[in-house]
Amino acid sequence: MIVHQTEPYNAEPPPDALADRAVTALDTFYSRNHGPIPQLDPHTWRLRVDGEVDHALSLSLAELQSRFEPRVLTATLQCAGNRRAGLMEVRDIPGEAPWGSGAISTAEWTGVRLADVLAAAGLGAAAEHVAFAAPDISTLAEPSQPYGASIPVTKALAGEVLLAWGMNGEPLPAAHGAPVRVVVPGYIGARSVKWVQRVSAQRHPSNNYFQATAYRLHAADSDPATAGPYDGLSLGVVAVNADILRPVEGQTLPVGATEVTGYAFAGDRGVARVDVSLDSGRSWVQADLDEPSGPWAWRLWRTTLEVPAGPTVITARAWDTAAACQPESARLLWNPKGYVNNSWARVRVVGSD
Amino acid sequence: MIVHQTEPYNAEPPPDALADRAVTALDTFYSRNHGPIPQLDPHTWRLRVDGEVDHALSLSLAELQSRFEPRVLTATLQCAGNRRAGLMEVRDIPGEAPWGSGAISTAEWTGVRLADVLAAAGLGAAAEHVAFAAPDISTLAEPSQPYGASIPVTKALAGEVLLAWGMNGEPLPAAHGAPVRVVVPGYIGARSVKWVQRVSAQRHPSNNYFQATAYRLHAADSDPATAGPYDGLSLGVVAVNADILRPVEGQTLPVGATEVTGYAFAGDRGVARVDVSLDSGRSWVQADLDEPSGPWAWRLWRTTLEVPAGPTVITARAWDTAAACQPESARLLWNPKGYVNNSWARVRVVGSD
Repeated sequence: MIVHQTEPYNAEPPPDALADRAVTALDTFYSRNHGPIPQLDPHTWRLRVDGEVDHALSLSLAELQSRFEPRVLTATLQCAGNRRAGLMEVRDIPGEAPWGSGAISTAEWTGVRLADVLAAAGLGAAAEHVAFAAPDISTLAEPSQPYGASIPVTKALAGEVLLAWGMNGEPLPAAHGAPVRVVVPGYIGARSVKWVQRVSAQRHPSNNYFQATAYRLHAADSDPATAGPYDGLSLGVVAVNADILRPVEGQTLPVGATEVTGYAFAGDRGVARVDVSLDSGRSWVQADLDEPSGPWAWRLWRTTLEVPAGPTVITARAWDTAAACQPESARLLWNPKGYVNNSWARVRVVGSD
Repeated sequence: MIVHQTEPYNAEPPPDALADRAVTALDTFYSRNHGPIPQLDPHTWRLRVDGEVDHALSLSLAELQSRFEPRVLTATLQCAGNRRAGLMEVRDIPGEAPWGSGAISTAEWTGVRLADVLAAAGLGAAAEHVAFAAPDISTLAEPSQPYGASIPVTKALAGEVLLAWGMNGEPLPAAHGAPVRVVVPGYIGARSVKWVQRVSAQRHPSNNYFQATAYRLHAADSDPATAGPYDGLSLGVVAVNADILRPVEGQTLPVGATEVTGYAFAGDRGVARVDVSLDSGRSWVQADLDEPSGPWAWRLWRTTLEVPAGPTVITARAWDTAAACQPESARLLWNPKGYVNNSWARVRVVGSD
């Protein structure tokens, strides 16, 4: 793993650990934390469901597992800061981790539908948002506060949002939210709250620091330090993105045929096409897309290119099913917190005879 | 109106007719047709609902209006070819109309939910798509065939899809689909079938020429003439787009403060922000967004810029709520049929002392 920070622990897999694997191994799934990793006892853990509901619930893990129908769903999670390193090449972003291509991973999640749990509590008509609270205290907020987030109730009621205790057929590891985490497919990873202890139906979005202040897109010339809560765009639904996983930046390759592989992800929209270029976009070939592991999983892609002698840039871009294409340049997407770099993917390689 | 073709009739409003009007006047709403405009007698018109349903229906206009709850919805329709002229500046697109900024308009539609009509027919579990058929014969298809389209059943069941007989409080004009048309908010205009006579629930998308062959995005180097049906990306959901409506291309303006206005539209995602630049994107100001007329309507925007002496390019770009931004250059989006030009909007003006 490429460790950006040890406390809190923030690490991403190297590109090679993601390549050619529809599902990411547990020990290489990216880890994005805002505070110390809580060690919760699954036997005493309880989930409180409250707020705009007819009757609040308090569920043990055994009750969660037995009262509702278990579901298995393959879903990709992507940090809002994935590929931030490309923005930091444009202009530095102090205090933020320089995530490369690996702040994204895919797992097969086992859990129950959040919608089923909300139905059991009798979701009230006044509920517009569903908030999640966890016990991990973050000093990124001032004053320090436990992590939290929220999603619109329409998303909370969509069948794909899970309260998950299993990951790739194993119990959830502590670093990934044991005993239970939220999985919100198609949203930035920050909404998939780990170590969840409370689900609250409410009229307004969460006022937690990580919903109200962080994870918001600000204009390039704005100063987030002086921005108020709720300024800027609250990030949720993900935009089409892609990166190249193999070859890697700076690699020397034999002249001739080389396989290029990577991922593309577009959340609810789905990936329609991936183009790859050896001439910086003057001409493109269409990559072959692997069959998806389901509607909420990334698409791995591959194609074979003829690498010439000398330095070459391999460029890739994805299109979603709305025909939205990734923008060309990270320079034009730079923002003060370094979110949502979905500019074209590029790796520089050298062809050697 | 700017008339691109008289038979079939294809025309768009000039930018000034769209500017500052949340709802477009009936006589300036863009008109995209593929054959002669049918003149249907509303007293004898019937809608057939069939396919994967428990019991087929045949509804008169009076029955449609009385059996289901009427709904009013403000929705923007945008042709997949809107702003094609920008692609044609890159490379010609023979046989296609050079739509400017005006192949988009907004109306207040009155009708009933397609979902309610499908429920009355007893929609079958096997239905995956809902197809629409109309009587307007198009010679664009070989051999000629009446116009048709389809949408996924999940969209057909969403509350926003209407069978509409009213437009801005008036009966639907013949050119806009009288007596009844489909309105599919957030999809390319081609799916909002005018003069609809038949709604069929089915397992597969429509095999009509305009669903299976036309309105598909092909790669820049492909030849649609040799492409088979179902090749390329079938267009449906719209991507974020925007254009400048005032000032207009080539306009001479007094040096100093000038109001710049336009529209932005992102379908189901919604518009988050519009940026405007006088230096081709090196710096931006954020435009003020008008309150939307509802979740399916465009956002009109405005800002005041200081126009310098001499030639200046005004650039605008919109972001949707997923933080997807319009791509910079039409050159990079060029495709053989000229669809979905959502590159940055630009108008060249001259500041005069």
